[in-house]
Amino acid sequence: MSEQTRTVRLPVMRRVLEANDDIAAATRAELALRGIFAIDLMGAPGSGKTALLEATLRALAGRRRPAVLVGDLATRRDGDRLARWCDRVVQISTGDGCHLEAIQVRDALAQLDLDGVDLLFVENVGNLICPVGFDLGQTAKVGLFSLTEGDDKAAKHPYFVAEADLLLLNKIDLAPHLSFDRAGFEADVRLLNPSVPILDISATTGEGLDAWLTWLTDR
Amino acid sequence: MSEQTRTVRLPVMRRVLEANDDIAAATRAELALRGIFAIDLMGAPGSGKTALLEATLRALAGRRRPAVLVGDLATRRDGDRLARWCDRVVQISTGDGCHLEAIQVRDALAQLDLDGVDLLFVENVGNLICPVGFDLGQTAKVGLFSLTEGDDKAAKHPYFVAEADLLLLNKIDLAPHLSFDRAGFEADVRLLNPSVPILDISATTGEGLDAWLTWLTDR
Repeated sequence: MSEQTRTVRLPVMRRVLEANDDIAAATRAELALRGIFAIDLMGAPGSGKTALLEATLRALAGRRRPAVLVGDLATRRDGDRLARWCDRVVQISTGDGCHLEAIQVRDALAQLDLDGVDLLFVENVGNLICPVGFDLGQTAKVGLFSLTEGDDKAAKHPYFVAEADLLLLNKIDLAPHLSFDRAGFEADVRLLNPSVPILDISATTGEGLDAWLTWLTDR
Repeated sequence: MSEQTRTVRLPVMRRVLEANDDIAAATRAELALRGIFAIDLMGAPGSGKTALLEATLRALAGRRRPAVLVGDLATRRDGDRLARWCDRVVQISTGDGCHLEAIQVRDALAQLDLDGVDLLFVENVGNLICPVGFDLGQTAKVGLFSLTEGDDKAAKHPYFVAEADLLLLNKIDLAPHLSFDRAGFEADVRLLNPSVPILDISATTGEGLDAWLTWLTDR
């Protein structure tokens, strides 16, 4: 883009982000009042965000009262998958929007009965870049990578890694069939975020999910 | 985002896109003059874009004269990988930019000696959403999915599928270890793009690459 269009775009983006942050702050205050722990779950398309939430909702049944918001450009497929395990699910269709925004989260929450809810999962649009800059009012940001994406994805997405409160590395059941430098991946993460926990999991086989559930329960 | 910020943003985005389209048109004209076939290769993070280009450059050695532009937020890793197989590679660092823009392609091409080049690969930033709307001056758009991303990715990314001149489905070597509804995936594609060819490939094992090289050579 030319310098001309760039100088026009910057102040507009600033206004958009400020408006977003104001709404996110109000959402955060309301969730805190209600005692709801809210997770913004971010990851690439096909990293296994919905599969992780399916396994998590199954495991938490009867122990916690979760609600789920799920963002996609199109289709209700993820919402339908998650509605099998949770009676408070809202699918957000973003059209051509590459990430969720605070106003979408606020409006979706208004459609839910939050009485008794103590845990909110917001499954963001599959994208390692755009969701990072938009505060949704979450308590914690969880970043999901998967082994099949390759060991270079942390280094290539520094903002995503730097912002994460927890990193999950999914699809470890496929490790025997892949070449993935686990030590190199972790070294890249440590340069960007020295203290973030990294949990190896398989949403399919359930391996490693106990550590994730413990992390959730400790919060 | 509020209606207020949205109404401010829309005319700005229109100006940005118009400026982008003007530059892309000039690039397209120059590439046509030089007889260069240019591919905008788009896919999710970890779908295997760089691995596909490595295999393609190896296979074309001595038969075609390719050049490569490769976009990433950070690191020179992909550029370094591809420079082993091609002496005309430019790595474009987008910072926090979620897609390539025409001006970046134009400026990167200016750094290359294009004499004798007949094929240009532009590896876009790993993202199924944002790259779609930005014309780079390419001759064809190639969309890369991979089996590990799941069979719902076409339906969930309708613009990506509708815009593609060719779709590649990578990582078929992992099929025995995954649950992937190949017929359902293709049915979703057909609703969005009735005539686009879909080629099943493995950039790792080389399976299916002949069909891709034939598609390239026929152009």
